[in-house]
Amino acid sequence: MTSQDSLQDLRSQIDVINMQLLELLSARARVVTEIGKVLTELGSEHYDPSREAQMLTALELANKGPFSNETIKALFREIFRASLALEESQAKAKIRVQRKSADERTIITLPDGVTKIGDGSFQIISGPCAVESYEQMDETAAALNARGVKILRGMAYKPRTSPYEFQGMGEEGLQIARQVANKYNMFITSEIMDKSQIDMMLDYVDIFWVGARNMQNSFLLRALGKINKPVILKRGLAATLEEFMYAAEYIVSSGNPNVILIERGIRTYEKSTRNTLDIGGVAVLKLESHLPVVVDISHSAGRRDIAMPLGRVAKASGADGLMVEVHPNPAVAMSDAKQQLYIPQFNELMDELDKYPIP
Amino acid sequence: MTSQDSLQDLRSQIDVINMQLLELLSARARVVTEIGKVLTELGSEHYDPSREAQMLTALELANKGPFSNETIKALFREIFRASLALEESQAKAKIRVQRKSADERTIITLPDGVTKIGDGSFQIISGPCAVESYEQMDETAAALNARGVKILRGMAYKPRTSPYEFQGMGEEGLQIARQVANKYNMFITSEIMDKSQIDMMLDYVDIFWVGARNMQNSFLLRALGKINKPVILKRGLAATLEEFMYAAEYIVSSGNPNVILIERGIRTYEKSTRNTLDIGGVAVLKLESHLPVVVDISHSAGRRDIAMPLGRVAKASGADGLMVEVHPNPAVAMSDAKQQLYIPQFNELMDELDKYPIP
Amino acid sequence: MTSQDSLQDLRSQIDVINMQLLELLSARARVVTEIGKVLTELGSEHYDPSREAQMLTALELANKGPFSNETIKALFREIFRASLALEESQAKAKIRVQRKSADERTIITLPDGVTKIGDGSFQIISGPCAVESYEQMDETAAALNARGVKILRGMAYKPRTSPYEFQGMGEEGLQIARQVANKYNMFITSEIMDKSQIDMMLDYVDIFWVGARNMQNSFLLRALGKINKPVILKRGLAATLEEFMYAAEYIVSSGNPNVILIERGIRTYEKSTRNTLDIGGVAVLKLESHLPVVVDISHSAGRRDIAMPLGRVAKASGADGLMVEVHPNPAVAMSDAKQQLYIPQFNELMDELDKYPIP
Amino acid sequence: MTSQDSLQDLRSQIDVINMQLLELLSARARVVTEIGKVLTELGSEHYDPSREAQMLTALELANKGPFSNETIKALFREIFRASLALEESQAKAKIRVQRKSADERTIITLPDGVTKIGDGSFQIISGPCAVESYEQMDETAAALNARGVKILRGMAYKPRTSPYEFQGMGEEGLQIARQVANKYNMFITSEIMDKSQIDMMLDYVDIFWVGARNMQNSFLLRALGKINKPVILKRGLAATLEEFMYAAEYIVSSGNPNVILIERGIRTYEKSTRNTLDIGGVAVLKLESHLPVVVDISHSAGRRDIAMPLGRVAKASGADGLMVEVHPNPAVAMSDAKQQLYIPQFNELMDELDKYPIP
Repeated sequence: MTSQDSLQDLRSQIDVINMQLLELLSARARVVTEIGKVLTELGSEHYDPSREAQMLTALELANKGPFSNETIKALFREIFRASLALEESQAKAKIRVQRKSADERTIITLPDGVTKIGDGSFQIISGPCAVESYEQMDETAAALNARGVKILRGMAYKPRTSPYEFQGMGEEGLQIARQVANKYNMFITSEIMDKSQIDMMLDYVDIFWVGARNMQNSFLLRALGKINKPVILKRGLAATLEEFMYAAEYIVSSGNPNVILIERGIRTYEKSTRNTLDIGGVAVLKLESHLPVVVDISHSAGRRDIAMPLGRVAKASGADGLMVEVHPNPAVAMSDAKQQLYIPQFNELMDELDKYPIP
Repeated sequence: MTSQDSLQDLRSQIDVINMQLLELLSARARVVTEIGKVLTELGSEHYDPSREAQMLTALELANKGPFSNETIKALFREIFRASLALEESQAKAKIRVQRKSADERTIITLPDGVTKIGDGSFQIISGPCAVESYEQMDETAAALNARGVKILRGMAYKPRTSPYEFQGMGEEGLQIARQVANKYNMFITSEIMDKSQIDMMLDYVDIFWVGARNMQNSFLLRALGKINKPVILKRGLAATLEEFMYAAEYIVSSGNPNVILIERGIRTYEKSTRNTLDIGGVAVLKLESHLPVVVDISHSAGRRDIAMPLGRVAKASGADGLMVEVHPNPAVAMSDAKQQLYIPQFNELMDELDKYPIP
Repeated sequence: MTSQDSLQDLRSQIDVINMQLLELLSARARVVTEIGKVLTELGSEHYDPSREAQMLTALELANKGPFSNETIKALFREIFRASLALEESQAKAKIRVQRKSADERTIITLPDGVTKIGDGSFQIISGPCAVESYEQMDETAAALNARGVKILRGMAYKPRTSPYEFQGMGEEGLQIARQVANKYNMFITSEIMDKSQIDMMLDYVDIFWVGARNMQNSFLLRALGKINKPVILKRGLAATLEEFMYAAEYIVSSGNPNVILIERGIRTYEKSTRNTLDIGGVAVLKLESHLPVVVDISHSAGRRDIAMPLGRVAKASGADGLMVEVHPNPAVAMSDAKQQLYIPQFNELMDELDKYPIP
Repeated sequence: MTSQDSLQDLRSQIDVINMQLLELLSARARVVTEIGKVLTELGSEHYDPSREAQMLTALELANKGPFSNETIKALFREIFRASLALEESQAKAKIRVQRKSADERTIITLPDGVTKIGDGSFQIISGPCAVESYEQMDETAAALNARGVKILRGMAYKPRTSPYEFQGMGEEGLQIARQVANKYNMFITSEIMDKSQIDMMLDYVDIFWVGARNMQNSFLLRALGKINKPVILKRGLAATLEEFMYAAEYIVSSGNPNVILIERGIRTYEKSTRNTLDIGGVAVLKLESHLPVVVDISHSAGRRDIAMPLGRVAKASGADGLMVEVHPNPAVAMSDAKQQLYIPQFNELMDELDKYPIP
């Protein structure tokens, strides 16, 4: 037999073994699935490291080569992991915020019955960092309204790093925001910081806003799952996308399906921008979840001089909208002075965005 | 004139200008203090952003270089801020958690009047990740007590990434923890997740515990500032040391001076450990704050096989104690299975630490 | 005098003092600039901490309040910093890669005299991760050429994490790349890993490529500054934008102005993408530098399923082009199997990009 | 049948399948070994991606679940990889720098035959950031020698962010370093930046030093694998431990077993220290590799005021030594002015370390 022939012959043997392995792996997976069901009945954890250790020891004892024990253990660990992943993917199928089909999408309709987020439109959410006075809100809202913006930031409770910084106007700020929103037929979104505020805020707010610091405040998230107003959920400053989706799951699984995700930049070593806008993360979220995703181009940048390219980027990314801070006079703003746009800058941004189609 | 001489000459000019600047800054501060008094008489806010904006504009117009307008505005903003701080009460102008002298330290005394944190001793805080049963707590506490540990983890509310993971036993868990602690004359520390839990938990808990996810939950922090039990505050997973100290300031400035800081690892790109223990940060905190600092060697590592070196490191760092998770049977633990120590491992760790002096 | 009047009066005093401060600060800055020149003559470091310490001590001794010594020292440290920054901005003005005016741009012309990068066009750089065979390169280049792509990846030296991974075909790979490029009238860009390779590679390569691992290899950068072919410089995986620009400065200051910057994602904690595309960094680079900037949508993502949104994002960001890996059969590629596009996917991406204008 | 019983039963089924899988995998490996022999006879490459692609396609077609095609392909790719590794020489299949048993250690002996690294001692590597003059080196070396330090930093080539910063004295610096080292019977370690420097530096240097920026410069690493002097390899500023070990493997697999790993802090968002010392990483390296590990307490901190606690931490971590920068007058140093210790501080550090046992 020539080398070429014997190669052919050996490769056929491999092909046969491959099929036998496939069959065994599948059989094994079926049994593991059964075990998963029993463990659920028993209320036990599915991942059992001591059982794994025992199986690996048995394999090691039985192994006569040519693979080393290390290799055998590595291969079986992969098999164990695949089995566990199989169970998890079944578990994950129960995660409500995950997209199950390419065209699944959550569409959120605001009280006018016309304004929608997640329906393929590109919504602008805007307003100053914080409510500072009636005049400031009125001037901003007039400018936004002139460009068709429907969702107005009416932030009255500001989470701040230092207890000595401006903490927002409180309920008085909400009253101002509501009054101004009513004047221009706009909707108010405002940050909630503690579940004890829900009842009071229900009177003023159209969309609840959960800040980055509260992304994993499960008591707040569950409480917002019980109301029937939409919730904007910001990604925590070092949250993974998986954690972000699970945070949304706390709200959705508590009964409120209307959650909007906001990517606002993550904390990295790079300091030329306030945070690092994770635009790839936006693309991944749009793949993996059916929830609307909005890009915050103000907190991610922390500087207004790149608002224009980031606005275009947000629209091009496939996101459902963008959030940008606008203030009549950013230089005297009580917070975020460097990142809020002047009104003329906002108008330029809107002109620019009009040139680009929604993907 | 040689270069060396002209350098001397120019530096003398600088010295003169410095003194003139000092005089002017002091004169300015005196006028601002007067203005403050008038504003108080008038019942007006002392901080007036539009007045600041107007002064900055005037300076900008007058500026002929060589400093850019940006630099001039930045310098004057510093001067404005200094003046404002001067007006505010001396106490408020200072950050309370900051060490003012090398020997300033906050010493926290537990209810037995004997156990102290921050007094130069090295305290061990230990127990399982979560209360799972009376037997589990009893077995753990017995082992810890045998080694002189006084502070027992009695975690009954577990903040979890997914809403479908084990969330803790709730108040039943607190009852178990209290019962076991009483049996062994130990103290309970337990995590609080929402300010609504304070009253209930006061009955069970000796030291409140604020988790990493709640480090910037200012409503919770302020509420804990109103009670008279110590609070352990964990560093957020991507919090800077400055943010960490400000978070403690929320508690302390609300009236509760007894705060213990825990470094528990920060989130980085490196995944061979669950988080990256910032031991340099511990050294910096000990320099900058008078609060006790404790090192969490479990969550920072996420694996028990390096508990021994990390325990030694914690003690060598100058920290006031360490936190380590111990479980009678980690393999079946409902959370953190990979990082909790077996009881014999815990004993080895204690033996090892005994060999090293407190710095 | 009423309170209102005396407020007016005091504020006028402040206005006068502000102007005097401005004058003094400017005078001081002029003297500091003189000192800087002398220090340069003397060959001394400009930043002199002991001189600063001595000035602060003098001020402390002279200070009679009302500002505390701490405040005075803080204010003067700001003034020192501003003066140093002034000198540095003059130093920085000597950084060649920095944009000095809004319309300054480096335009790189390839050997056909027609293909340009940085002229306002949007160039596509593409090809497989590595040269594997003539057939593979030919099939890829044919597809790229059909879409008007002019710059072909012809990677023959692959920097790999492990010494046991495929390290590229070496010079044989360069020969294949050159042959294929000639067939389709395309240009070859290929990675150089050591300065000893320059002479050999000059025969094959139109654009030298410096990988992320070599971004700060100053010996290589300086050597590339001596040749007259363009250089593509990738951002290091944890390089700041400032470091990135300084790396380009090593090449430009050595004599070669034709440098193209590539943003390829930075390393962060987030693992759903291989790296985190720093699209805000692209916007900042376009503001701060006149060099062309290209976005690598393959290494930043590490997955081909988000190539479409990232391609749109790259174009919308204002970058001068994008880099995308394409392979006839990514499943069998010897590296980067998960991120290289299939040829039909590449065609879809080109179709999509055609719908969006260059900003 | 109770749940408990059926669990038992299902697990027995798994045990049987595991053994069948083991048998098949072993049979497969034997056939692959045969194929390898034939391919060698035929002079063909053993790694054949198209054959792999064809097997994967066949498996995909045959797969009827429950594993997804993706999972099946992933598992078989692991099996292919294991088989390939098996074919390769036993030595090559193993990563040389990995510890195979708990007591395996690389001990490096310096030319005096007495000074050792990795033998259980705790070595101090010290000296100024850069050679600046004979006097500076002499004064430093005298102080170090008085405390028994044997390894002197003699850095003559400084990799700098900016091309306009001090780049080191070059060969003149090496001459000074050598002269001073000879005077005090010390050993010189000095940074190499390009493989072209090896021959020249061999005359001056006892231990080659590869900086963080060159950790993945494979041309340099391989070249250092051909010499018979030890190499200190610094971790890249965002390198994973796995990448770090592979970088060492480039040297070791090229023939030079004498590599010392240095942890020098990783780049994170936290800026109160220059880098974040990954002390947990040191513990992991000591577990996973037999190479000596040294802790750089200067570059990790970037500030000298925490050198004392970090020195204790380094010793407590189980590392084989520490590296600390010392300068007769750090205030005037040409680089790293804030982190180099004054000589009296160095002496205090040595006194402190003497109090602590080596673990």
